[in-house]
Amino acid sequence: MDIRAISPDEFEAVWPVFHTVIQAGDTYPYPPEMTFDEARELWMTPPARTFGAWHEGEVVGCYMIKPNQPGLGSHVANCGYMVAPSARGQGVGGTLCEHSLATARDAGFLAMQFNAVVASNVAAVNLWQKHGFVVVGRVPKAFRHAKQGLTDILVMHRFL
Amino acid sequence: MDIRAISPDEFEAVWPVFHTVIQAGDTYPYPPEMTFDEARELWMTPPARTFGAWHEGEVVGCYMIKPNQPGLGSHVANCGYMVAPSARGQGVGGTLCEHSLATARDAGFLAMQFNAVVASNVAAVNLWQKHGFVVVGRVPKAFRHAKQGLTDILVMHRFL
Repeated sequence: MDIRAISPDEFEAVWPVFHTVIQAGDTYPYPPEMTFDEARELWMTPPARTFGAWHEGEVVGCYMIKPNQPGLGSHVANCGYMVAPSARGQGVGGTLCEHSLATARDAGFLAMQFNAVVASNVAAVNLWQKHGFVVVGRVPKAFRHAKQGLTDILVMHRFL
Repeated sequence: MDIRAISPDEFEAVWPVFHTVIQAGDTYPYPPEMTFDEARELWMTPPARTFGAWHEGEVVGCYMIKPNQPGLGSHVANCGYMVAPSARGQGVGGTLCEHSLATARDAGFLAMQFNAVVASNVAAVNLWQKHGFVVVGRVPKAFRHAKQGLTDILVMHRFL
């Protein structure tokens, strides 16, 4: 798998994955009707950076990394990961996570925090725990799951 | 105390309070060097709304309210409160909090969440608990406190 930072001009390459993931309405709070331009602004406007992952010429996933807070919280990174439906169950998420941890260390971050891991997304919760994250918070009913209705979200964290 | 929504043109009125609070570097992650224009953009760009509080013609505090997340998390409000140093210990924070809870209910929010209450700010933690918030998360060392160094932040939440 080839993972590299993309430029705003290349966001088109990852948009099909992004669009499919948000339309499902089961893992990200982003509005399912979000447009290409809105998505690109969110993931490509500095200090946010987006990385794409290719396998045999196909985009299999992507992630965005940015400071979780401005100013006095900027030593904590935040990441969001997306994997193409056709590439799931093949370790892509874990590989993206390890790549993002290395990216975060290189950028001088001291920790990484996820603000809104959907509690019913057990595969993701288990994956992040395997990669060193611990649940540090649980917000009741903070996510309107497309199928399950109001669902808890988890705050997860690890030092780098 | 007179509390009302302000327009972007009126942000100048609350800026002295905002500026003083962020320069202390002990309660907000915002960069202490944040400019007037950056602050106004952050607190006045819709869907964010800012309210000012006046007492005897003086601005004694302000708060900002917005959805904590876009899209599928937009039923949870987020608020930030600031009280003028000269007006502290007089119940202004509590009054702002109650006003914001009413504003949030009127706007249709189902809950309110604070993402980054500085754990060492015991007065604030106690105040929010008094107003119905519970600690639902604790992120270790996520705030670079101007005097105390790396400090935990709390995630606090209540239903409306």
